[in-house]
Parts: sequence; C-alpha cells; structure tokens
Amino acid sequence: MSEKDQQDRDLVLKFLSGVKDPALKKDIISLGFVKDLQVDGKQIKIKLSLTSPGCPHKDEILSDIVRSLEGYSVIIEVTHNVLSGSFVRKEGTRKVKNIIAVGSGKGGVGKSTVSILLAYALKKLGAKVGIIDLDFYGATIPSMLGSSFVQEVNESGLLIPPLHQGIKIISLAYFVPQNSSVIWRGPMLSKAVHDFMEKVDWGELDYLIADLPPGTGDVPITLGQDRLINAAIIVSTPQPAAVNVALKLIDTFKKLNVPVLGGLENMSYFICPNSKEKVELFGSRYFKEKLEEIGLPYLGALPFVPQLRELEDVGVKEENISYIIDDIIPVAQELTCRLSVLNYQISERPFFLNIPKKK
Amino acid sequence: MSEKDQQDRDLVLKFLSGVKDPALKKDIISLGFVKDLQVDGKQIKIKLSLTSPGCPHKDEILSDIVRSLEGYSVIIEVTHNVLSGSFVRKEGTRKVKNIIAVGSGKGGVGKSTVSILLAYALKKLGAKVGIIDLDFYGATIPSMLGSSFVQEVNESGLLIPPLHQGIKIISLAYFVPQNSSVIWRGPMLSKAVHDFMEKVDWGELDYLIADLPPGTGDVPITLGQDRLINAAIIVSTPQPAAVNVALKLIDTFKKLNVPVLGGLENMSYFICPNSKEKVELFGSRYFKEKLEEIGLPYLGALPFVPQLRELEDVGVKEENISYIIDDIIPVAQELTCRLSVLNYQISERPFFLNIPKKK
Repeated sequence: MSEKDQQDRDLVLKFLSGVKDPALKKDIISLGFVKDLQVDGKQIKIKLSLTSPGCPHKDEILSDIVRSLEGYSVIIEVTHNVLSGSFVRKEGTRKVKNIIAVGSGKGGVGKSTVSILLAYALKKLGAKVGIIDLDFYGATIPSMLGSSFVQEVNESGLLIPPLHQGIKIISLAYFVPQNSSVIWRGPMLSKAVHDFMEKVDWGELDYLIADLPPGTGDVPITLGQDRLINAAIIVSTPQPAAVNVALKLIDTFKKLNVPVLGGLENMSYFICPNSKEKVELFGSRYFKEKLEEIGLPYLGALPFVPQLRELEDVGVKEENISYIIDDIIPVAQELTCRLSVLNYQISERPFFLNIPKKK
Repeated sequence: MSEKDQQDRDLVLKFLSGVKDPALKKDIISLGFVKDLQVDGKQIKIKLSLTSPGCPHKDEILSDIVRSLEGYSVIIEVTHNVLSGSFVRKEGTRKVKNIIAVGSGKGGVGKSTVSILLAYALKKLGAKVGIIDLDFYGATIPSMLGSSFVQEVNESGLLIPPLHQGIKIISLAYFVPQNSSVIWRGPMLSKAVHDFMEKVDWGELDYLIADLPPGTGDVPITLGQDRLINAAIIVSTPQPAAVNVALKLIDTFKKLNVPVLGGLENMSYFICPNSKEKVELFGSRYFKEKLEEIGLPYLGALPFVPQLRELEDVGVKEENISYIIDDIIPVAQELTCRLSVLNYQISERPFFLNIPKKK
C-alpha cells in the first residue's frame, strides 16, 4: 500500500471513529463493527457487521456514516453477528447464542402466544430461531402452531427438533398424548429442563425462546441457578392481580441474577367486533406504572386478538398472522438491541477489535 | 303411646318411606332424613334434616312429602347436616367436613374468582365456609377480597385465620410482601399445603374451598396422595388450549383417585359495554363437548364481567356482587348435591338410620 493510500485510509478511519452505536455508546471502530474497508480515491466500500438482526439503530448508524464521509461515494454492506453472553452451554445448546425466557409468573396472560409471535418476528428480521416449551404441565406450543413431530436422532444420539415454518421447536406435547397428564413433582421439572436443552440437537441458533410455566418454582430456579438463560422478558396483562404476580417473577429473577430486559403488556385492549370501539378488558396503565417504579423498560402493548386465538385452536400459519407479526417487530428489535448491550457489557471486552488489514 | 297412636305413626312412616331423595335415590326414612316425627290425629310435625344447605331437590322432596300425606295437616322444619367423607383430618382441619379443590391446570382462567364466588354462594346458602389459597406463587385471594391479616394464634398454637365477611381465609399473601416472591422448589410446596391445613385453626366448617395453582405438580399430587381433599371441580374457559390443559388435570385427579364433581366454564362470553352484544372471547362449546365425551357433568357457564375484575383490583365486598353471587348459586347447589351423593356413597353405610322414638 502506498503512503498516499495509507493516509487516505487513516483519514477515513478517523471519520468513521466519530460514528457511535447509540445503544452501546461506543464508536463503530472500537466496537469492531467495520469488518472490511476499501478506499479507492473518493470511492469507499465498507463491510459493516451489526450485533442484532433488525438492529433498531441501523438506519441511524448508516446515515451517520454517510454524513461523516461527506464528499465520498460510499457503499455499505451490512451483515449481523448476534452476540452471545459468556454462557457455558452443554451438548445440544452448544451453538445457541442466546436463550431468552418469556415468563409472567401468572398463567393465562399469553406467554405462549407472545413466544410464538416473537419467534416469527425474529425470524422475519433474519435471525435463526427456536422455541423451547418449558411449560411442561400445560405444553401448548405444538397445538397452537399445528406442528407435528417425527422422532429422529442425530449421529450423536441427540433428538432432532421438528422444524415448523423455519422455527425449531421442542415441547413435551410431542411426547405425551393430548388428554394425558404428567404428574411430576418438582425435581422432574429440573431434569426435564436440562434434557430439553442438552439432549436436543438445536444446532446454530441466534435466539432460543423459552416459554416458561406460571409460578416462581423449579423451572425458573433451575434456569437461573444453572445459568441456562441469558435474559428474560416479562409478560402481563394490565390487571393488578396479574401484574402483582409478574412482579414476583421479576423479584425471583433479580434474586437469581437473571437480567430482565423489560415488560411486555398483553391483552391490553380489545376492539369490539360490533361497535369497533376499544375495550380495556383488563384495565390499563398498572403494568407500565409498576415497571417505571422499579426502573424496568416497558416494551409495548399487544391487543387481545380473537382471530389469533381462533387460529391457535387449529394451528397458526405465519402467512395468516403477518400483520400481527409486523406489530411485534418493534418489540423484537428493542429486545435484541437490549440483549446486544447486555451481552456486550457482560463480555467486558471489545469484540472484533481489529479491522482486517488490506493485503 | 297407645296402640292407636302407634298405628297412626306406622301409617305415616309408611307413607313417608315412599318419598325419595332424587339425588341419593333412596327413601327419606332409610336415609334417616326424618329426625323427629309427631303425629297428633291429622296434625303432623316433621323435623327433616337434608344433607346440603340449599339442596336443589329440597322443594321436590317437600312437595312429595305433602302429597304422600294427603288429608293430613303437615308442618315441616328443615335443617341440614352436611355430610363429610371418610377422611382422616389432622389438627387444624379436624372439624372441616369437606375440602373441595378448584383447579384448572391452566392459569388465568379465573380459579381464584370462582373460588371466591363459590364461597360467597355457599355462605348465602347457609353453610360455614373457608378459602385456602394453595396457589403459593400467585397468591391473590386476599388482595382480590381486600382482606387484611392480624397474626394471632389460639391456645394450641394454631394460627387463627382472618374472617373476611364471614369467610375464613388463609393465603401466603398474608405472609409475603406484595412485590416479593417465594423461590420454592416442589418439596416446599408440599410442606406448605400441610402447614396451611394442619397449623391453621379452621374450626367447624362445612366447606373449605382450595384454590389450586396451575399445573399438575406438587400441590395436586400432595392433595391426592395424602387424601386431603374430598373432591375437585375443574374451571376452564371454552378455548381449546385451556380445555386441553384442564383435561390433563382431570386425568391427574383420576390417577390420584380424587373424584371430580364436574367442569365449570368461566369467561364464557362478554357483553360489549357499547353494543350490548354478546361476544364469545374464547370461543364456545369445546369444554362442554369434551366433558360430555369423558362423562363428567357440565356445571354451567359464567360470563367475563369486567366490573368484577375491577372490584377485585380494590377488594370485593359481598354486597357489591350479590347479583353475580345469585348467578352462581345454582352451581353451588349442584355442587353440594353431587358432593352429598359422593360422601353418601363413600361412607357405604346408611347414616342417621334411626328415627328417635317418641318418649
């Protein structure tokens, strides 16, 4: 490389080091987001690797880059590299970057529905996604999705999870006849959590969504104590009785050192099919107020959609609920962004620090 | 007693032995329902003791008696003597005649609301009632009722339960601050079930309503294996995802030999406050159909009442929901009637067999 070329390149790097990731609050050079840089006179090609698919700050970062390189012609290629926390995963989840619990403490607030919607939204954003149904007594993910199961194992003896519309799924519902129950005391629940993670061939996944059971018992305790999940989000209706139980799960995760990314309100309102008016079935505000009180982000509100419930009775197809998925995409973006920040902070080291030198 | 008197009395007894209890399918003399009989010429006074407060067959039995004694002038005094199963109760529940679990498997279908409504309805029918909140992770009965607690013990060291509008209540919510959680694994749940029954001074109760947690785990297993409850009723919305989980709890109780008295549909429909039209939020029919399939009684359907939910946010007072309680009274009657039959069958012996002889 000529001295002139090196000077051009250094100048461009200097400009780029003025561009910050608004979430991580560091410049994109220190963060190692610039994976490749080609400077050819006034022509610049940048390969940019962001941390989260559908990063909500992507547009802001891109326009900041273009602005910082005024006078240049800039081509930017964006990829993403989902960060992983510093978790030691065993066997089946070895290549799973993030496991996010969807909990509420309370039953019947729509944890499974939210898990499904989040999984579809993350997939739409370009991520590799799975759902692990840890509500063993009330395993409903397969019936809600209309997903069926062929028992297959890989060469290492790990169970191959069914792939439903691109999403890998494991649920006890695949193994127990519909009207039959599992009469398990607590220790069995702990064992089942580990089995579902370790004895299933999850392969490479960016996000594995863990649908939790109600309560603050064996399943969340196992997830926290055994450091199995990266973070959790909390789902609740705005109804005080539900919110107060959700706060208990938040307290549990705090005691177990599981980071909570925020609270998502579900069944917030209902559009009456006759009058088209908005009815707040479970009240309003209480969840948001309580989250603010304890300093946790409010991730948004989802309506009660009877059509979705009807689809869940027979099996949800992605194409039938694309308008609902679109509604939840901002929540998914916010979530992955917060998770990136968390993983970045946890890793306690700058990642991808070196820009590869041009040969 | 003169021979004439004895003949008159024998004739009346013969007439009365033609009157059957429609539920127990035996005559009221063999059943020992006639506790006292005074025959004075054409004047007859009967003390009748039925098995259940608000027995739904009371009117039928009374009119059958009057019909069978045509030509006589009849005065009947009705009391009730709630039957108890052959359960060995310890300490605190020694004088509790029946413990009825309200379960669903699924969370968020209104178990606590139904428990409260049933307790009020049974009280209105004349029974002595308590509520034992066994949903330890999501204990909400006290906040729904606005009931507060003063920790007191009796001379034997048993805890005195707070009396809220005539109903005795125990809940973990009295002992744990609202936003704090109990991080208990399964075995603690079992111990807590026993503590709540044995270390609380329940005194004399006809019915103790046990509000269950979601799931088919430690709490229902303990109740069944340790023979703590007489029977259960199952609450579900009509939504298939909820019904299928409810069926699992029914299966669990079957495996544990806990009699299930029937299924009660909740949140069946909603009257839109604007259009006043009936909206089936969670579909319809599925619970009733499934109950019929497995041969269990359908006890009825309760609406989704936003006003009730609002009252529960601040504490339900009996006088504010008397119209809702009236709606559930037929369910309570049906329930006590089925329980009487069950207890009668279990006891395997005619009870109160002898009519006391007139001195």
